[in-house]
Amino acid sequence: SCSLSKSAMQDILWSHAYRKYCFDVRQMHARLSDQSARIRFILGEEDDGPPPPQLFTELDELLEVDGQEMEWKETARWIKFEEKVEKGGERWSKPHVATLSLHSLMELKTFIEKGTIVLDLEANSLPQIVGAQIESGQLKADLKEKVTYTLLRKHRHQTKKSNLRSLADIGKTVSSATRNPLEHPVPCLNPQDSEEPCELKNKFMKKLPRDAEASNVLVGEVDFLETPFVAFVRLQQAVMLGALTEVPVPTRFLFVLLGPKGKAKSYHEIGRAIATLMSDEVFHDIAYKAKDRQDLLAGIEEFLDEVIVLPPGEWDPDIRIEPPKSLPSSDKRSNMYTGLEAPQMNGDTPHDTGHGGGGGHQVGEELQRTGKFCGGLILDVKRKLPFFASDFYDALNIQSLSAILFIYLGTVTNAITFGGLLGDATENMQGVLESFLGTALTGAVFCLLAGQPLTILSSTGPVLVFERLLFSFSKDNGFDYLEFRLWIGLWSAMFCLVLVATDASFLVQYFTRFTEEGFSALISFIFIYDAFKKMIKLAHYHPINTDYDPNLVTQYDCRCMPGAYFTFNISSGIPPLCSKPSFPVNATLASLTKKQCMKYGGQLVGESCGYIPDITLMSFILFLGTYTCSMSLKKFKTSRFFPTRVRKLISDFAIILAILLFCGVDALVGVETPKLLVPSEFKPTSPLRGWFVPPFGGNPWWVYLAAALPAVVVTILIFMDQQITAVIVNRKEHKLKKGAGYHLDLFWVAILIVICSFMGLPWYVAATVISIAHIDSLKMETETSAPGEQPKFLGVREQRVTGIFVFILTGLSVFMAPILKFIPMPVLYGVFLYMGVASLNGVQFMDRLQLLLMPAKHQPDLIYLRHVPQRRIHLFTFIQALCLAFLWILKSTVAAIIFPVMVLALVAVRKGMDYVFSQHDLSYLDDVIPEKDKKKKEDEKKKKNKKKGSIDSEIEFVSKCPYAFKKERHDTVSLNGYRLVPHIKVIHEC
Amino acid sequence: SCSLSKSAMQDILWSHAYRKYCFDVRQMHARLSDQSARIRFILGEEDDGPPPPQLFTELDELLEVDGQEMEWKETARWIKFEEKVEKGGERWSKPHVATLSLHSLMELKTFIEKGTIVLDLEANSLPQIVGAQIESGQLKADLKEKVTYTLLRKHRHQTKKSNLRSLADIGKTVSSATRNPLEHPVPCLNPQDSEEPCELKNKFMKKLPRDAEASNVLVGEVDFLETPFVAFVRLQQAVMLGALTEVPVPTRFLFVLLGPKGKAKSYHEIGRAIATLMSDEVFHDIAYKAKDRQDLLAGIEEFLDEVIVLPPGEWDPDIRIEPPKSLPSSDKRSNMYTGLEAPQMNGDTPHDTGHGGGGGHQVGEELQRTGKFCGGLILDVKRKLPFFASDFYDALNIQSLSAILFIYLGTVTNAITFGGLLGDATENMQGVLESFLGTALTGAVFCLLAGQPLTILSSTGPVLVFERLLFSFSKDNGFDYLEFRLWIGLWSAMFCLVLVATDASFLVQYFTRFTEEGFSALISFIFIYDAFKKMIKLAHYHPINTDYDPNLVTQYDCRCMPGAYFTFNISSGIPPLCSKPSFPVNATLASLTKKQCMKYGGQLVGESCGYIPDITLMSFILFLGTYTCSMSLKKFKTSRFFPTRVRKLISDFAIILAILLFCGVDALVGVETPKLLVPSEFKPTSPLRGWFVPPFGGNPWWVYLAAALPAVVVTILIFMDQQITAVIVNRKEHKLKKGAGYHLDLFWVAILIVICSFMGLPWYVAATVISIAHIDSLKMETETSAPGEQPKFLGVREQRVTGIFVFILTGLSVFMAPILKFIPMPVLYGVFLYMGVASLNGVQFMDRLQLLLMPAKHQPDLIYLRHVPQRRIHLFTFIQALCLAFLWILKSTVAAIIFPVMVLALVAVRKGMDYVFSQHDLSYLDDVIPEKDKKKKEDEKKKKNKKKGSIDSEIEFVSKCPYAFKKERHDTVSLNGYRLVPHIKVIHEC
Repeated sequence: SCSLSKSAMQDILWSHAYRKYCFDVRQMHARLSDQSARIRFILGEEDDGPPPPQLFTELDELLEVDGQEMEWKETARWIKFEEKVEKGGERWSKPHVATLSLHSLMELKTFIEKGTIVLDLEANSLPQIVGAQIESGQLKADLKEKVTYTLLRKHRHQTKKSNLRSLADIGKTVSSATRNPLEHPVPCLNPQDSEEPCELKNKFMKKLPRDAEASNVLVGEVDFLETPFVAFVRLQQAVMLGALTEVPVPTRFLFVLLGPKGKAKSYHEIGRAIATLMSDEVFHDIAYKAKDRQDLLAGIEEFLDEVIVLPPGEWDPDIRIEPPKSLPSSDKRSNMYTGLEAPQMNGDTPHDTGHGGGGGHQVGEELQRTGKFCGGLILDVKRKLPFFASDFYDALNIQSLSAILFIYLGTVTNAITFGGLLGDATENMQGVLESFLGTALTGAVFCLLAGQPLTILSSTGPVLVFERLLFSFSKDNGFDYLEFRLWIGLWSAMFCLVLVATDASFLVQYFTRFTEEGFSALISFIFIYDAFKKMIKLAHYHPINTDYDPNLVTQYDCRCMPGAYFTFNISSGIPPLCSKPSFPVNATLASLTKKQCMKYGGQLVGESCGYIPDITLMSFILFLGTYTCSMSLKKFKTSRFFPTRVRKLISDFAIILAILLFCGVDALVGVETPKLLVPSEFKPTSPLRGWFVPPFGGNPWWVYLAAALPAVVVTILIFMDQQITAVIVNRKEHKLKKGAGYHLDLFWVAILIVICSFMGLPWYVAATVISIAHIDSLKMETETSAPGEQPKFLGVREQRVTGIFVFILTGLSVFMAPILKFIPMPVLYGVFLYMGVASLNGVQFMDRLQLLLMPAKHQPDLIYLRHVPQRRIHLFTFIQALCLAFLWILKSTVAAIIFPVMVLALVAVRKGMDYVFSQHDLSYLDDVIPEKDKKKKEDEKKKKNKKKGSIDSEIEFVSKCPYAFKKERHDTVSLNGYRLVPHIKVIHEC
Repeated sequence: SCSLSKSAMQDILWSHAYRKYCFDVRQMHARLSDQSARIRFILGEEDDGPPPPQLFTELDELLEVDGQEMEWKETARWIKFEEKVEKGGERWSKPHVATLSLHSLMELKTFIEKGTIVLDLEANSLPQIVGAQIESGQLKADLKEKVTYTLLRKHRHQTKKSNLRSLADIGKTVSSATRNPLEHPVPCLNPQDSEEPCELKNKFMKKLPRDAEASNVLVGEVDFLETPFVAFVRLQQAVMLGALTEVPVPTRFLFVLLGPKGKAKSYHEIGRAIATLMSDEVFHDIAYKAKDRQDLLAGIEEFLDEVIVLPPGEWDPDIRIEPPKSLPSSDKRSNMYTGLEAPQMNGDTPHDTGHGGGGGHQVGEELQRTGKFCGGLILDVKRKLPFFASDFYDALNIQSLSAILFIYLGTVTNAITFGGLLGDATENMQGVLESFLGTALTGAVFCLLAGQPLTILSSTGPVLVFERLLFSFSKDNGFDYLEFRLWIGLWSAMFCLVLVATDASFLVQYFTRFTEEGFSALISFIFIYDAFKKMIKLAHYHPINTDYDPNLVTQYDCRCMPGAYFTFNISSGIPPLCSKPSFPVNATLASLTKKQCMKYGGQLVGESCGYIPDITLMSFILFLGTYTCSMSLKKFKTSRFFPTRVRKLISDFAIILAILLFCGVDALVGVETPKLLVPSEFKPTSPLRGWFVPPFGGNPWWVYLAAALPAVVVTILIFMDQQITAVIVNRKEHKLKKGAGYHLDLFWVAILIVICSFMGLPWYVAATVISIAHIDSLKMETETSAPGEQPKFLGVREQRVTGIFVFILTGLSVFMAPILKFIPMPVLYGVFLYMGVASLNGVQFMDRLQLLLMPAKHQPDLIYLRHVPQRRIHLFTFIQALCLAFLWILKSTVAAIIFPVMVLALVAVRKGMDYVFSQHDLSYLDDVIPEKDKKKKEDEKKKKNKKKGSIDSEIEFVSKCPYAFKKERHDTVSLNGYRLVPHIKVIHEC
């Protein structure tokens, strides 16, 4: 009863609001199972063969050009998303989601139902194809010639304006079967082509895989037809039909719609509909495998089934919808038919991309407890050894070179800043030179031998904090700092080796996001606070004369006057009271500099003595300028200007550029701002020490044993810092293929600590930010991706070469002193401020803090906001903030040295929260602690059985929130380091 | 053949991929005309009656709560867009476009086809409604009780957690008919309600108009049914069904779907589908007017007809689509049926919101040439006189108060900045006090009597430039500046009056966007350039000692030494050579200040004499800080923090806040930065002048005549500046109802110039930025708008009171001197920089300049990029940039005084461009010049006839680009002003 009479059909097409989708239920029932079965059959068969090639779809329309002859003009193209030729703009639109009307889809369906369908036609030129259709009786003989003539009109493509060619001269067609798929991109086939259009074509060809085929959609209105002529042709072999297609890709499908005048818009829409269908992954498969008309119709049905509908009153069809960042997998749809998955309703079902998809806390093979002595370490070595050779030849790529340069700059910045800071904290017992040397040595050894060579070792914030505390403790108690430190290092290394031997790294699972973020947020706060503290200290050393009046310039001066203990060598013979050096014979009081005056026990008298002009203000300009400049250059990546490549480069080098820029500003203004102090010779920064720290002699014997106590603290610190970063580096989403080596990593860290302790170099652990930057710079992506589509992430170039080279270069940088001494300290403080602020970005805790200030309706659409009540979120944030406040206060008191232990206490707090929050809420706000995880799953199962079919049931199915996790964990960073100004101090005492 | 057997239907609903939309053509044909005719009939009738009330739609689902009894729980609501109850989030999602599946729409259609439809049921309680359905035979008697029981379960709404109530106690229902639509929002109807939930309800009630009605959608699964029970009920009268609806709005529609277990998701989707339909404007009308089931079905058909389809492979249904900024009018759809407009295809047809919709260049009634003497002026007076009384009582609104405060602050800032600048340019012949007085006087008179009281008069950039040129010209040629200026003013006023008398304002039409933007961009550039120039000048006056070494502090001093012409009154009797004042008897050389030293002819000797510490650097901090702070506070409006009201406040007061903040910083640091000079007494800033400028005596007689020459320039300047702003203010999109008065405006400007010239006050013309701010602060919008919907703009509160008050307050501010003197000059320079940069925002010329740096694929989706080839756009930009460069060079040479005439030459250049660019391109990049406009229309008609039905034809239909125009014209601004530092000059000559 649903058949279509020919004359009636034509009427429908030319009338406007004709639609009536009727449910013919009796037939539907039969067809229904028929349709599913059909699609299942079509998609299921030949599954062992290669998947059908990707399609390039081009929509050509018949247009009158300049009042001349009719021509075919390309008006849109598809790989995945639609690109339209802008009317009058003579350019391609941005790729966008093709919004169709249901109308045109229904019309298309009618045409497929009633039009000519030729599958697996053996033809290799357009005239042949037209001929075949006419033979099949679809066209009256008298129209044959006209249709053929029309189809062979010139084709005008968007990218090559001058390249008009008639189809008549397409004798030389090349079958795609004759092409070797491994050979170079298809050469230009038409010798009359100039070189340029060829290049243009090939530029777009990069977006297509080599075995891509084309489907050509030709629609147009002609005056000789009274009923539309429709043909859907699939060729037996993909064939180059000359200039028919914009790019030199062989044509497999051809859809022709010619109809009477007056309905160009409607034809255009139908053309877009079939083109969109051809670019749909599922229909595309069906089109390749269809045996008859019914298969195609079933494909359209399936498409309509899955379609997303926007109500006309709530959306403007003129708005071009940008391609979404992520798309639901088409496998779901295919699997529905191939029987792999139960069919699902279209709705708001969550993506269950697997339990803990992006979490990194899943118990991988590497983290399982073996129970044997050194079991984990041995497994790590066994796992990594087979890859050792490939770890070198896998690096042979130009990408490695840029990664080396980028990471080198980051490492050097880190070495300078942390070196400076350590120098300040330890009164130059460890300075910039030690920092460079230590970084180079440990980094190179680690990258060469460790389990995960993508990890970059560096000084980190927590270690720095500990060193500072240790130094002041040693000083206060009269210990020999370096010797004490050596023993702590030895003990820590031993503890670490015990941890390695007992496979203790499996404990990493207990570090949930709560602990990680608390830890890194705290370090960030300390860095921001310190940056400002340094600046204020600097301002105090260079006080501004706020009462300065230019008019009173004659009143301001500063003279050296003889003090009480002044050595009067000139005029009298009174012996000096202190052992002050003698005043030179030829000098006068007025000629003395400030320092000399002090040296000889003079007194500075005058209004301008207490002030130093310009330096403080200049320092603040440099400090804030460097920070602002780094921030905005980093953000430049998302601007619209310049090609992506240039923007990425600028963004990657943001900090270096900012440092260079403000060094330039400083040099230009010329004010004597405090500069970085770098030793110009290769010797320890402090003259009080050598390159080897003797283990005995400096401290009483019991100190060697007592060092075990702070060593526990250091061990905890190193373990946490190292393993949290390792987990992030080895995260599942990085798709690492060569496996991790947590135990092996920790083993080498321990060995290197022994070496560093003996040499008096800083200790190094994995640094999160720079390791992530390393991975990012080595990411491999699919080279061909459809316009508008995000390139697919393939994995990371896992190798040891980049790391080794980075650290060799760092070592050679010791000789950079003449350049480094031009860097003003405020610029480095600005970099610290930037690092502190940047590392807070993307930390979920900060997002939640911000939520407190946002009215509910302005809050972003975060996944946990969809699922957890707001007051629970705020409670969670409040507890976390409270913990941090407590740690902050602890840090400022004498108990500061047990600070790392208290950080570990965060784990306990988190465990306590299991009793306050439901596991469901925690799964969104945090990770789930292992044991609880199991328990929760059981709960789920129970609930599932009980509540099956309930609307709320989806909540229980989702135990992780992959979205939130991916986004936020990716940006979680811990901190880097900094460097202190050598202040000019006025010594007043005798 | 398309009928549905009952048993078959049930089967369909529970099977999955069952759909088959078949085109039953024979029937379709009949139904087709039937459907259009039906909709036409439904929508057409009773068109004279009031439109149907707005609907609030609520979706309730039957859920098991805490394992207890089943309850109805609100899961979504609609006014226009969907708001969803977040699962577990216990809060409302953001309003979003409801994405449906075609599936659920088809199921819904089947249900409407086969379920119970009761239209105009007379009932006023839920039991009655249920009863009526059971009588209609749709339910078996044994199920009756169970269904009734289910429907009367408790209803739990989102906004009030504790307020669970059974429907059983809903005896007291109130018919909406008894409510007076003008009375206050519906009070809480249930006395047992506490006050709080009432408020909550009423908070949302604000989003609904008073006569709104509700439609309730109830869907759920029950265990006692084997086939779904569906009912669509429209009540005769809207009735309060107690707690059924979240807000106290009477229910008109009820959709009930109860079905067997296991399909909750499917029911949910169907519920969303009917709710979305009910919130669709066209279906909503049909639902109100439907006579039978067929009418409803026709409505669904119509909806499906217009639906927008997204392909499943290109979009993720989980993404919530934000409501678009603008929506196509639903009138188009309705008109299609009521026969007012031809039906149109769904596609990318442009919005033809009328020719020049946002342009403001259409020849309105006010700008037509009368041809009579003063014809336009007389018409203006006639037009405005009837509104004079209402211009006062229309202001009675709290909005006026905030507008007064806001515009007052803007005006005062302007007066300060321009006053300072003028003082600098004219050596204080016109200073801050004159600026305040002039602003207050002219502004108040203009607002009281002019044609368009929304226009705010102010000093503007071009006038300032002219004054500067005039003063240096007078000085160079020894003219009496004020007298010369008086004569220029008199001549200009006369010319302006001639222009008024001859209706010359009609020429405004020739000022296209090209001219306007060239003019305003140039002024912006001058301001940015000047801000930096001032800062560099300031730095030169306060040189930094870059060689300063804190160690050498003892070597730096500056002493007063006797110079060659020093007056040695102390030691010798040598008579002074110059007439230097005598050196005081008791003073010593050392005690002299710098100024005194200079006064007595001394010489400053020493290393620190040439330098002034800290001031330059502090000035730069203040300058850049003020600029950055203003910028970021202005942008704060679009941040997510704080409620919209607070953000708007901060953004509106951005500049004032930035000024205050940096005045605070300046005070805190305490460095003696140059401050704003304000006279503390009410007398002319310069002691050389009085409050009246005598017209004769200062210059030779021929200067009075020669003044006519510069007066021509001034006239052009004033005419352009005034009328461009007037056109922007009177723009169509502001929906002004009281008409414009171009001639009357110019008349008063001329009169005020005469007064100002005689009093030696600056000249004032309309200022674009501040006038637009005035209009924005007086905009009226619809008070109720659906969540997610943009409130509709109703018009502007047109009155004279705000303007008058603003200027009275400005006048009183003359006495603010003690406060103003704390403002550092660099802060004001920062404000200028901000103003210069901000006024470049949204200027299309700047957008086009930026395009030069953007790769095509990153360019924003600007309307002219869709329609004009890129190289034409770049050519246009290039010509414009060339013109500006020429004007810039001209400005810097001696010919600067003819600068305004050259700006006028832009009009000629623009006219020349008619021969280079096609009218089509110009219509997108610029406005169309009047004569050409006509010609173009003719061309269009020709082409239209020739090319009818061609795909490209749409190009010709679009003669304007309303989008681009609206966005960009709205932000087009001209410039404000600034103020110069009184520099400390070291006088070295005798």
